[in-house]
Amino acid sequence: MSRTLIRDLSHHPDESVTVCGWIQALRLQRRIQFVIVRDHTGLVQVTHVRDGGVVEAAFEGATVESAVRITGKVVANDKVKLSGLEIVPERVEIVAAAEAPLPIDEHTNLDQRLDWRFLDLRRPSQQLVFQVQTTVERAMREIAEAEGFTELHTPKLMATASESGAEVFEVGYFDRTAYLAQSPQFYKQMAIAGGIDRVFEIGPVFRAEPSFTARHSTEFTGVDLELAWIDSVEDVMAVEERLLHHVLIEVHRRHGVEIEEHFGVTAAVPELPFPRITMADALTRLRAAGWDPEGGKDDLDPEGERALSALIAAETGHEFVFVTRYPASARPFYHLRPDDDPSVTESFDLLWKGVEITTGAQREHRHEVLVAQAREKGMALEPLRGYLDCFRYGTPPHGGLGLGLARLLMLLLGLPSIRETTFLFRGPHRLEP
Amino acid sequence: MSRTLIRDLSHHPDESVTVCGWIQALRLQRRIQFVIVRDHTGLVQVTHVRDGGVVEAAFEGATVESAVRITGKVVANDKVKLSGLEIVPERVEIVAAAEAPLPIDEHTNLDQRLDWRFLDLRRPSQQLVFQVQTTVERAMREIAEAEGFTELHTPKLMATASESGAEVFEVGYFDRTAYLAQSPQFYKQMAIAGGIDRVFEIGPVFRAEPSFTARHSTEFTGVDLELAWIDSVEDVMAVEERLLHHVLIEVHRRHGVEIEEHFGVTAAVPELPFPRITMADALTRLRAAGWDPEGGKDDLDPEGERALSALIAAETGHEFVFVTRYPASARPFYHLRPDDDPSVTESFDLLWKGVEITTGAQREHRHEVLVAQAREKGMALEPLRGYLDCFRYGTPPHGGLGLGLARLLMLLLGLPSIRETTFLFRGPHRLEP
Repeated sequence: MSRTLIRDLSHHPDESVTVCGWIQALRLQRRIQFVIVRDHTGLVQVTHVRDGGVVEAAFEGATVESAVRITGKVVANDKVKLSGLEIVPERVEIVAAAEAPLPIDEHTNLDQRLDWRFLDLRRPSQQLVFQVQTTVERAMREIAEAEGFTELHTPKLMATASESGAEVFEVGYFDRTAYLAQSPQFYKQMAIAGGIDRVFEIGPVFRAEPSFTARHSTEFTGVDLELAWIDSVEDVMAVEERLLHHVLIEVHRRHGVEIEEHFGVTAAVPELPFPRITMADALTRLRAAGWDPEGGKDDLDPEGERALSALIAAETGHEFVFVTRYPASARPFYHLRPDDDPSVTESFDLLWKGVEITTGAQREHRHEVLVAQAREKGMALEPLRGYLDCFRYGTPPHGGLGLGLARLLMLLLGLPSIRETTFLFRGPHRLEP
Repeated sequence: MSRTLIRDLSHHPDESVTVCGWIQALRLQRRIQFVIVRDHTGLVQVTHVRDGGVVEAAFEGATVESAVRITGKVVANDKVKLSGLEIVPERVEIVAAAEAPLPIDEHTNLDQRLDWRFLDLRRPSQQLVFQVQTTVERAMREIAEAEGFTELHTPKLMATASESGAEVFEVGYFDRTAYLAQSPQFYKQMAIAGGIDRVFEIGPVFRAEPSFTARHSTEFTGVDLELAWIDSVEDVMAVEERLLHHVLIEVHRRHGVEIEEHFGVTAAVPELPFPRITMADALTRLRAAGWDPEGGKDDLDPEGERALSALIAAETGHEFVFVTRYPASARPFYHLRPDDDPSVTESFDLLWKGVEITTGAQREHRHEVLVAQAREKGMALEPLRGYLDCFRYGTPPHGGLGLGLARLLMLLLGLPSIRETTFLFRGPHRLEP
């Protein structure tokens, strides 16, 4: 049976079509039955004058959110708000009836809505979130393709805890223990050591953090890039700028109007380049503005991130800012340290509207320097052997970044939490649905 | 510094360029030093007449697989096999020296090569595997986009073991136990219940199977599709045909020559439609040919799969075959059973060259039927409650499939094992590198 999507009804005036969707609302009056049907492309009114027939009976027993297939004639009607069209039904099939009442409605709090996520997802604004996500990933891959990246899938099961060993999930693996990857970091670098010039991955990342903020989850989708033969960390920042610039152009082009309509925000396209500020300068300027009065912090806390973004926005009008040259003490052992100042790293965070969405760096590719830096951090070398071996046979200079997809979507759509931009959120207290 | 890729050297005759790559071979003769340099796009000969200078010294101390950056003039030389070009070096930088000897060479067995996967990956044939993988995924997404699929990332952490409970990895999750998803099956269906019309995902799948065949791993990349509002399982098979057809066209177009060169196989484009055979017919025909002489099997074993593919290929010349209508006893409770024969399911496997690459089905979307089928299989309903609840509020007919990416690549490239088409293979005895 040929299905017509609701957004395409205007191409079929006076024709008989079949639409498939859900009953959004029923208004069963004495003489006329009005039924609003929704599919993933829009809403349409179905108008049936009571005649004692099977259509009348089908609607009379129907419930909201039932899945229906309706065949009828597309009729122009200026009085109808939904594109001035309605369907006069000839055949109505309740394909799958919904129980009544529904367990959630528009007043239900977020946590309960997450319990019934599939019903919550039926809201057009939630449908839009994942349409935008699809566009975001497509735009990223367009840049990845144009710039010669190879798509890889790194393992999520590791033999050793990837970095600190804290915040890592343990997995029973036959007669031993495996760990869930907290990032594809080491594996991306292994690919670079393996001669893959540029690596691109979108995949799950696991963090056993007991965090309950709007920005944290125990499993999220990470976008990871790694580039060989860079001249400096600037090459990594530049590729991220091009990536986000293209993403925001595409989102604006495809969904700008709907985003404005559903979320009341404009998907603006940023200018290039994004502002850059060193961590030392950022700290100085934030302290001058009253942040960290005790002066003990060498990294930005969330309040510092918000203050810095506000400061840069006021100065430049830009929503993004790269914070560079993080102190070596605040970064992992494998971040490259510049020759002119070994107390800092060739690293960066990218803040958007006061929230960190990316951490990136040039990596240290010289085996002896890596070993020295690991020792300096007090790390045991034996668990790192597999990683360190990758630097014994000619690994070129390289760098990369990781970006959280749900955070990007949260900021793009002006939503308060990544719980609403994740298909099925996972937190310390939430493993279901 | 501007880098020229080796494949682009022919565009720069008599110019000075910089190439970045690895030393593939050194031939240090009395008068002349010949060095073959490799990047991810090709090989080039660097020819240096000894002159007692710094270039001579750099090459004299160099080791194979060191990462090098070489600046020099592109010169035509008919005697050189590599595209008739060579580079006369002006400046040589050993960016990262490789230790000698290398731990693997071309005679090393597969298992040891996997220990040093990053070195194994530097072989041009292995680079090609992941370039082809990138093309395969891109082509799949082109079809997904054209046909209105939404890209989703389903959780890999689950509160209950997804299907049988066997072959599932357990994860310590704060004060409870989580499980790694054996497939995105339930979540894809939840998205359909959530009104997402068509779902597409490429992501990791985990199987705690103690299998050591060339076709099994404990973590692999799955391609998953799910479609709402289907008329029958035929709609699912048809979308897979279009997907694979487009994939093979694109692979042939972009990599056909190289695949032939490195693997000696032709990436042929199949005709549509693929042959279809019911399981009952397949069993009858295989038994007539001597398979399963005891007559106890109701499903194909690997030998049966190979025999069936051979039989279909002999008859139709086709490398693919859909086997349909698997017995209900051999399929999970959620597969739809046709009205005319409840002993079978509206399901299929797709075999390619004798190997199963896909399992798919129309799913049962009627809550009461699902409950009855789960009971019939002797399943406890309580662990299924979250899943079953998705069918209480109007879930339309739907179906989908899962496809293993590494198997597809193995068959496409004529390789003997998915260990060679997986970036970092994971098996019961292999968690490293």
